[in-house]
Amino acid sequence: MEKSNTEQLYEEEMQMFADDEQIDSFREQFLDMHPYDQASFFIEMPKETRLKIYTYLSPEELADVMEHIELDDIRPLFTEMDPRLAAMVLAKMATDDAVDILNELEKDVVVSLLTIMDDKNASEIKELLHYEEKTAGSIMTTEFISVYENKMVKEVMEFLKAEAPEAETIYYLYVVDEDKHLVGVTSLRDLIIADPDTQVSELMSENVLSVSVAKDQEEVAQMIRDYDFLAMPVVDFQNHLLGIITVDDILDVMEEEASEDYSLLAGVSDMDRPKDSAFISAKKRLPWLVILLFLGILTASLIGQFEQTLEQVAVLAIFIPLIAGMAGNTGTQALAVAVRGITTGDYGKQGKMKLIAREAGTGLINGIVCGVLITGIVYFWQDDFFLGVLVGLSIMATLVIATLAGALVPLLMDRLNIDPAVASGPFITTINDLISILIYFGLATTFMQYLV
Amino acid sequence: MEKSNTEQLYEEEMQMFADDEQIDSFREQFLDMHPYDQASFFIEMPKETRLKIYTYLSPEELADVMEHIELDDIRPLFTEMDPRLAAMVLAKMATDDAVDILNELEKDVVVSLLTIMDDKNASEIKELLHYEEKTAGSIMTTEFISVYENKMVKEVMEFLKAEAPEAETIYYLYVVDEDKHLVGVTSLRDLIIADPDTQVSELMSENVLSVSVAKDQEEVAQMIRDYDFLAMPVVDFQNHLLGIITVDDILDVMEEEASEDYSLLAGVSDMDRPKDSAFISAKKRLPWLVILLFLGILTASLIGQFEQTLEQVAVLAIFIPLIAGMAGNTGTQALAVAVRGITTGDYGKQGKMKLIAREAGTGLINGIVCGVLITGIVYFWQDDFFLGVLVGLSIMATLVIATLAGALVPLLMDRLNIDPAVASGPFITTINDLISILIYFGLATTFMQYLV
Repeated sequence: MEKSNTEQLYEEEMQMFADDEQIDSFREQFLDMHPYDQASFFIEMPKETRLKIYTYLSPEELADVMEHIELDDIRPLFTEMDPRLAAMVLAKMATDDAVDILNELEKDVVVSLLTIMDDKNASEIKELLHYEEKTAGSIMTTEFISVYENKMVKEVMEFLKAEAPEAETIYYLYVVDEDKHLVGVTSLRDLIIADPDTQVSELMSENVLSVSVAKDQEEVAQMIRDYDFLAMPVVDFQNHLLGIITVDDILDVMEEEASEDYSLLAGVSDMDRPKDSAFISAKKRLPWLVILLFLGILTASLIGQFEQTLEQVAVLAIFIPLIAGMAGNTGTQALAVAVRGITTGDYGKQGKMKLIAREAGTGLINGIVCGVLITGIVYFWQDDFFLGVLVGLSIMATLVIATLAGALVPLLMDRLNIDPAVASGPFITTINDLISILIYFGLATTFMQYLV
Repeated sequence: MEKSNTEQLYEEEMQMFADDEQIDSFREQFLDMHPYDQASFFIEMPKETRLKIYTYLSPEELADVMEHIELDDIRPLFTEMDPRLAAMVLAKMATDDAVDILNELEKDVVVSLLTIMDDKNASEIKELLHYEEKTAGSIMTTEFISVYENKMVKEVMEFLKAEAPEAETIYYLYVVDEDKHLVGVTSLRDLIIADPDTQVSELMSENVLSVSVAKDQEEVAQMIRDYDFLAMPVVDFQNHLLGIITVDDILDVMEEEASEDYSLLAGVSDMDRPKDSAFISAKKRLPWLVILLFLGILTASLIGQFEQTLEQVAVLAIFIPLIAGMAGNTGTQALAVAVRGITTGDYGKQGKMKLIAREAGTGLINGIVCGVLITGIVYFWQDDFFLGVLVGLSIMATLVIATLAGALVPLLMDRLNIDPAVASGPFITTINDLISILIYFGLATTFMQYLV
């Protein structure tokens, strides 16, 4: 979002206060902003100004700021901070956010920060650090509110008043038995409406949905979206309540997963960032390009096999990019549909067979339409009916096979437990180049006598 | 998600209860499920069973179910229902969900449903129906809780108890003045901690962020994600509070926008659905394919201009798909990076010039690496140094220009206020085919004497 002039002036004034050590004026303006705006301001400051600001704010206040800084920007901040301050700030943050930050830092820095930190916070964080990336465990927080089923509503309300400032959300309350098994859920909304003398067990819903710590974050996001939850409890294999995942973290997960799928479709394994230099950006894209270059050489050597055909009928070369291009286009379409369908879980087992049959049908219809169109065009343009039929037939066959390939590759990857989104557009395009050339020159060589 | 056997049995039993008119048993099992699961079950039933179920449930209970049915599946349900029941169900739904459903129905059905509905609900819905699709107005709900600034915390808590069952969220309370201007915000969390005798004006934050009704839904999603809000107030141009947008609707917006960007990158303007037949699916993809076919004919006729060159040096044809393919690949990468950067708002005005410069650099580095690689390979393979240099130079020039084109096209579209995501991968690929052919054959024709 672009800044208005007023915002710009406000921020310039704050920087002046910070640099001139007018601590009270700085604090007043700074703390009046939402933490996200504090974070945006903070990250734009020169290092000298930031070093001063660290001394003006309490660890709690800094924790609020740090929770809203993009993870890509976090490392320099925790490196320039005094380690004792860094440890205190981390201890004041929501555990899930602290863990996210520690995952961005060097291993020895993490160890020393956890050593300085008080034992309770350190052990909570250490526990979360164990969970594998992109699982429910890695995105959950341990700052949740759980209550025993035999408590009264009025007792719970008193308890909430004390716990509210620390908890990540107070709007869902998870009910546990004496062994910390998750047995129910209730909401602050229900508590407010309820008679203060009701027991929690009467109020709660026993039909509580939870996810296992090992669950993929994308599936958790899908569940929270389907059920319209604000938070979801995370349990271990014995149904002990371990933590909760809140909807604000799910928004980030969705953004991350969407960005990942999008990049992979375009053949960029790791998305460039606006600040990346040309070198870094080239480094991220080159691996794909080099692989595709070698696949392209395969295609070239395949055409090389047909050099004799080409020497006799040079006009054949004219239609190479058209046919290869159409193969790539239709393949990418089918790929996108299949990947999207698989990742959103819209296909069951039966659905997959149906998808393949559907794609074959779609390829055939598209093939016939495009094939007939191009036959006519080539006939009128080159005044050569057989050339027209050859190009038309090639397009038709190519579209059927390339459409199928586009759908089959991600399905196959899914079967092999590889994320189907990895089957990128450029990859399928290059594979389909190969297939289309084989069909086109195969047909041309077979029916050579009609062409010359 | 796939179903377990227990779930399957449970659902079969419910269907039996429904078909046999064992209303009490059916209601007991059905109402024990989460509305999302009720919706999933409901949509899988045959029409005859559904027609019975309509009579077993109250309009409120049906509203809960309907709120969780995918919009694509909604039309047949509201067509098979008795219109008076349909109107009652819509009246019991959250206004934003009711509006979403009405947008799926035929215009005359909408008019007749609104005529049957009681005036209060009908006028609320009519107001929301006016807002343009994909704006804040179109996704907001009018069931929010607003309080006057001079109220006491204890009064507000009493008020909440009465309003809680109806409101979309009771966790954020928006504070308005006498003329309904939005002046502040407070949360149920703050209310619970606060002394019951505090005035709302002392408790509230005056620094309340809001969006205008006309704001694009994607920008609203970005704000809610950045600020970690559960809801966001929507105001008109005079800052009157009109409605709120809740985070559960934002999850749907994010899914919708991600799906749209992904499909467009692959050249599918409207995503296929698992249930679509081959005909429907072909109809969705054909427009793109036909446009690309005509662009491909342009490329073909361009090569046709160089037929003489091709007749003299047939080997040139071998490298056409390689060069065109690399142009397409690098263009799609640059496109994806630019579109992503623009839609997430990571670039300011300055950033766009920087992006272009960066992409030129990236294209040059990738071009040099791939160009040198391919020169060596072609030289050793074809034993022709000049051919190697020709292909290498073409790849290099192609990669620079195609990378730039990939970034420039979405930037240009953004400048023209067109969604940059519309610049799909296949489109940029086909444009880059053209560019690459021009470079390759242009160079080949110019330096012909070294090749033959």
